[in-house]
Amino acid sequence: MLVSGQGTTLQALIDACAGPAFPARLAIVLSNVPGVYALERARRAGIPAAVIDRYAYPSTGAFETALRAALDGAGVELVCLAGFLRILTPAFVDAFAGRLINIHPSLLPAFGGKGMYGDRVHAAVLRAGCRVTGCTVHFVTAVPDSGPIIAQAAVPVREDDTVADLAARVRVEELRLYPEAVRLFTEGRLRIEGDRVRTLPAPVAAGPGVGDRAGGRPQEAGAAGTPGTAST
Amino acid sequence: MLVSGQGTTLQALIDACAGPAFPARLAIVLSNVPGVYALERARRAGIPAAVIDRYAYPSTGAFETALRAALDGAGVELVCLAGFLRILTPAFVDAFAGRLINIHPSLLPAFGGKGMYGDRVHAAVLRAGCRVTGCTVHFVTAVPDSGPIIAQAAVPVREDDTVADLAARVRVEELRLYPEAVRLFTEGRLRIEGDRVRTLPAPVAAGPGVGDRAGGRPQEAGAAGTPGTAST
Repeated sequence: MLVSGQGTTLQALIDACAGPAFPARLAIVLSNVPGVYALERARRAGIPAAVIDRYAYPSTGAFETALRAALDGAGVELVCLAGFLRILTPAFVDAFAGRLINIHPSLLPAFGGKGMYGDRVHAAVLRAGCRVTGCTVHFVTAVPDSGPIIAQAAVPVREDDTVADLAARVRVEELRLYPEAVRLFTEGRLRIEGDRVRTLPAPVAAGPGVGDRAGGRPQEAGAAGTPGTAST
Repeated sequence: MLVSGQGTTLQALIDACAGPAFPARLAIVLSNVPGVYALERARRAGIPAAVIDRYAYPSTGAFETALRAALDGAGVELVCLAGFLRILTPAFVDAFAGRLINIHPSLLPAFGGKGMYGDRVHAAVLRAGCRVTGCTVHFVTAVPDSGPIIAQAAVPVREDDTVADLAARVRVEELRLYPEAVRLFTEGRLRIEGDRVRTLPAPVAAGPGVGDRAGGRPQEAGAAGTPGTAST
């Protein structure tokens, strides 16, 4: 998992992974910002964590090479972004195509794209006078906030909401939705079909490893291993 | 009310207006298309109805002059569009500023604007792989689908939805939302503040005409009269 801040979404995944039936586990937490609380959360949960600071590297390429080395070294199958404040290059995104996901605090395609992150999103929703907003988990592609949508949840906007009010209400849904998306991926149930994601039905109970393997085909988004190092 | 087709939304308003507590009544139904079923619905409900066909007039200006004459002649306070397939000119929109509303079958600002109407909206939502869509009632301004939002409702998208499936599911919410917006307007509870709409609280029970009058101030969107010819 790649983080830049408080790590509230990380905490939701830590909590989800602690559930006995959850198929993924967190392999490594990487922050591009030193000293953030997300790192402390990882340490408390016993998850390997490291800082990979862009400003400690001579170029974006060198920074991303270090990220990739750390992720590959941890054997990750899925890379999760949550509040990660650096736009990743197409080279990085391509290297993790179909196994790199992000959560965005609006109902994409609304209120996404350049400059739309964090509280700026909620401020824009309030300026537009919307009555409904939400959050979106999506695969990351080279175009920010435009990759295939995995899951969305709607959240009401109240007319007297502050940005903080709205952010808090959306966050409740984010913390529910992201672990659910990770679970679907880890169960091999997400298939990218062009610009869309097909969710395969939950497997009927069968022997271990039987009936829940959908991986391996071209365009297959989900990793099949359970319970492996499916999420980072 | 201005219509162009089947009149399902008109029917929802006819039904709402038949309720004893509903504050509005339909003054006139105008269709720009001859022979549509909406006209039959109006006749059955005993509402004056007429065809004002753009192609019977030498210009858009003359067509809109005829529309305005019919609306003003019926003493309408609010003009409702529902599936009205002509874009109205800024002159017409300005003449009814703050008392002209429309319903759009998506969560604006997503999937609005030029060329986005009817089933095209739902097809675009499905192509984008969205998991949530909805509908929006908004004041009409000169920029299509960009006026201040009065109300929105969210609707889930299922992965195997056809356009018809999704249209039907959204329509259920449209038929609920539009009469609700008309009610708020007629009760004088909608106030346009810049690009947003403020909904005033429901009046506490009081004498007739007392406590529910919010009209008359500049920027006031709602008409206060009850139960008058508040909706057309």
